[in-house]
Parts: sequence; C-alpha cells; structure tokens
Amino acid sequence: MPGERKTINDFKLLIHLLKERKICKRTVVVWPEESHTQEAVCKAVHDGFIEPILVCSKQTMEDYAKKNAFQCIIAESPEDAARKAVELIRQGEADIVMKGFLNTDVLLRAILDKEVGILPKDTVLTHITVAKLPEYPKLLFFTDAAVIPAPNDKQRRAQVQYIVDFCHAFEIECPKIALIHCSEKVDERHFPYTASYRALKAESETGAFGKCTIDGPLDLITSCSVEAMKIKQINSPINGETDALIFPDIEAGNLFYKTVTLFCHAKTAAILQGTMAPVVLPSRGDTIESKYYSLALASLISR
Amino acid sequence: MPGERKTINDFKLLIHLLKERKICKRTVVVWPEESHTQEAVCKAVHDGFIEPILVCSKQTMEDYAKKNAFQCIIAESPEDAARKAVELIRQGEADIVMKGFLNTDVLLRAILDKEVGILPKDTVLTHITVAKLPEYPKLLFFTDAAVIPAPNDKQRRAQVQYIVDFCHAFEIECPKIALIHCSEKVDERHFPYTASYRALKAESETGAFGKCTIDGPLDLITSCSVEAMKIKQINSPINGETDALIFPDIEAGNLFYKTVTLFCHAKTAAILQGTMAPVVLPSRGDTIESKYYSLALASLISR
Repeated sequence: MPGERKTINDFKLLIHLLKERKICKRTVVVWPEESHTQEAVCKAVHDGFIEPILVCSKQTMEDYAKKNAFQCIIAESPEDAARKAVELIRQGEADIVMKGFLNTDVLLRAILDKEVGILPKDTVLTHITVAKLPEYPKLLFFTDAAVIPAPNDKQRRAQVQYIVDFCHAFEIECPKIALIHCSEKVDERHFPYTASYRALKAESETGAFGKCTIDGPLDLITSCSVEAMKIKQINSPINGETDALIFPDIEAGNLFYKTVTLFCHAKTAAILQGTMAPVVLPSRGDTIESKYYSLALASLISR
Repeated sequence: MPGERKTINDFKLLIHLLKERKICKRTVVVWPEESHTQEAVCKAVHDGFIEPILVCSKQTMEDYAKKNAFQCIIAESPEDAARKAVELIRQGEADIVMKGFLNTDVLLRAILDKEVGILPKDTVLTHITVAKLPEYPKLLFFTDAAVIPAPNDKQRRAQVQYIVDFCHAFEIECPKIALIHCSEKVDERHFPYTASYRALKAESETGAFGKCTIDGPLDLITSCSVEAMKIKQINSPINGETDALIFPDIEAGNLFYKTVTLFCHAKTAAILQGTMAPVVLPSRGDTIESKYYSLALASLISR
C-alpha cells in the first residue's frame, strides 16, 4: 500500500520500515574474518532484518559463529568462500551477498564468472550509494562511485533505471534525478555525455523509466539548492530538490562519495546492483555503521 | 624572510599577512554593476590590500565610484569594459583583474585575444582554488574547477607548478601535493593520466617544480586522513596531510568545489593563473566573502 506510506528520508526510517514489514533476508557473508563486519552483522541480526550464513574459516566458525548461533559453512580460503557464497545465491538459498575481509577482486571474480557467477548476461553491473548528509533534508542516491569507469549509453540507461527503482523502493513516488555535469550547457565536443543526458531526459518523458523527473546537464548546486537555482536563473523541474545524482564518471562519483564521507559527516549505504542478488561490498575504511546501513539497504532492495 | 614566517593556514592569516607586508594592488574591476562585487571591493579597500580602478557605466561611476572616491573609467558596455581592463594590465597600470556583472565568456574573450589579450603565448591558463574546510586543519589548494576540461601532460605540469608556487607564497616550505584518482593503482587502460601521475612524481623528485613532495595516484581520503591511510595500509610521503589536490579533470575539480561549498561550509578563494596578472573570476552564486578572499589571494600572488 504505497499510498499510505511516508517517504523514507533517513536511515532510521529505513530500519523502521524493515521492522514494520518484517523483512528478513538470508545474507551470505563471505570470509567475515574481522571485527567490523562481524559487528555490523550482529547489529542487523539483532534488528531482525537479516539471517546470516557465514562462509568462513574453521576458527571463525568456532569463535564467532558458535557464540552467536549463526549458520555457518567452512571454507578453505577467501577464494573458496567467494565461490561457495555465489553458489548459494545461484541455488536460491540466499538473498544477499556481503563481502568480509577479502580482496574485492577475489569476490568480483566469483560474481562475474561467466559460467557459475551471478551477473546475468547483458546485464549492467553498477554501484549505488545512498547518503544522508546533515546539510540536506533528503536521502541522496547516487551512482557510480566504484564500478564503471566511464559509462556508455547502455550503462547510463541502466544506472538511471536502477536509481529510479531504488527511489521507488524508498517510497519516493516521483523521484527527481539530476544528470550531473560541471555546467548546465550541452557541450558535445568536450563532454559527449552531455548530449546523451538530453536523450535520457527526453526518453524519461515517454515514461520509459517509470514515474520520475529527470533533468540535465545540471550542476550539483543547482540540483540541490533552490536558492542557487534562482540566482543562476535556471529553470529545472528538479527545483533544487534532487533525490538522485547520476555522475558523469567514476572519478566524479568516487570523489563525491569520499568528500561527503570525510568532510560532511555523511552516513552512507552502498550496494552493487545488476547481479542476481544485491552485493554489499564495503571498502576497508568503511565504518561499522556504514556496513550495517548497507545491509539494511540490500534487505529492502532484495526481491 | 620566509624563515621567520608562519605558514598561512586560514584566510584570517592571509589578510593579516597582506596588512603586515603593506601589500596594496591596483585592481581593475570590470563592469561592477551589482552590489556583491561592490561590497567585496569596498571591504578589500577598507582592509588596505587593493586600490580599485572601476571600468563601469556612467551611472555606476556617478553613484558608487563617486561615493567611495574610487578611480573610474567609463565604458559603453561589458565588452568595452573588458577590453579596457585588459589594456590597463598590458600597459602595466593595474596588477589584478576582477570580473563584475558580465558574462564570463565576454571577459575571457578579451583576456585570450591573441593580439591584445593578456595570456602569453604557449602559457597554460588554469583555475586555482584555495579552500578552508572546518573539518581540515590546513588550507586546501586545488585545481582545476573551471577551465581545462581534461588536462594534457603539458597542462598538468603547469597546474602542478602553479600550485607549488601558490603554496610557497603561503609560506608552506615543502608543500604536499596529491595527484587525485579514485584509487591508488596506476591503470593506463582506463585512466591514462595515472601513468602521467607517476611521471610527475618522478620529475618532482629531481627538483623540477621547486621544493615540494608529490605523490599519486592517491584518493582523497588517503590524501587527507592519516588514519585512513593506515587502515588501507598505504605508504605515502603525503601522510594524510596534503596541502594541494590535482584533480584528474574538470568534472572532479568542479564537483569538489561545489560539494565543499554547498555541504561542508567551506570558505573559498579562486583565481585564474597563467595570465599576465591574476584574474578574479567569481561565478554568480559566489558569496561576498568568497569574492573578498579571492581579491586577497590575487593580491598575495600578483607580482
């Protein structure tokens, strides 16, 4: 009953929604051999929205899994753990994958394996972040901070579709999506993607992505501040109230992620999208809280 | 006597230094037909570090210039004002150019004119910002948020040299310069400039840029946080204490500028570098304070 629901505009409301809907997802945790991952998992279990399946070393099973009475599969190595985790998803025995203490490449290799991986053929893999900034009244969805160096048209279409779907899952009825560029001008010579921005905007107006409002090229300030929009005398249906930012490339997306994390006290959650199940892929520096919110995000998005 | 001086790590110290050294630069203000520019100029005059020459409409001369007893040249139009301002620099009658209420393109056309402009042949024009973020203990210099879409090797060398010189002017004896990328890995296939980063680093070690420490590719967090650097087990002479960031392209630089301005309460100053005199080129949304700090920056840098 989406009509009755309130838009989720911070992480507390997300956790509340998961509890209210009694959402609980089977989450395979790959090689959870360090305390941050373990604490995030415990907190999510405590709050009831995941049921973990650890794929871990014998020692971790004996210590952490037993103590918490978590389901557990022994693996010989990170590589072995990654393969076993992916297999669980393929067999329909888990809904979410979470990376523990192993190299991202190792997990990605298992996920992307053409024969036994979990990325369907011709499907775009991308990275989506949800951030809460103290200075912005909404959650801010953005892509891509971590996977696609420079999206081509197909990849950007997929990014837009995933973001729209995410926003809908967060009960945002008609999300406002800004296609980010350093200015508001289409400049095919220096920035070819600004032309594809125009095409995406036109396509969105036919309803191709579902209910949403897309505009671009727009810069960050015009997208997120109605005052700035007025000062710059720009008219945009985004009206300084964007829900989501599509960045031109990974340098921009990654930099935004790191700037708001380091300098703006942002809380973040992030997952990979495109795979048969959402993948929580934290980086080494991420906080326990960020890992926990990422699990919450994955639980809401997982079908 | 640089040895006796304290590093300038915020804008207050910059203003203090200008006063102490009795620096006062002749500043030609192009078409100052709006109140923000006028207020910034008045404040800088009050603090003694600029002496303005307005190139303005008859009306502004009669109102604002007369009231403040400012030197004044009448122009017929913004285009005319831009030409006249540039001519003053060429004749050695002014030290700084400041844009007022006219289109950036109009001023740039006069500046870049091959016959009567003020960009020496074969000189790289770029944009340098100095920011003070509440969350960072130093001033943070960065380039390029506004001019060069994707720097080639020559342009990036020039950016590095300008930034090093800026830092030296701010009494930073051995500035730490981070060459920014989304990761710490050189990846020539997807990000060709990461290879040129390595070359720049090697070149800096020969003393080519003067006294400085350059490292890269590094990401923002590793550059600005020693804790993050340790967690990621990265060794860098930057040691999480970077003075300056060289961004891969304008999308990254512009986004950083806008993110810290909008979401991090950053104070900023910015000028164009490469021209015969520093150019203060604020955008419409900039605050009076930012215009004032930019004048201070230009006064320190101007020879």
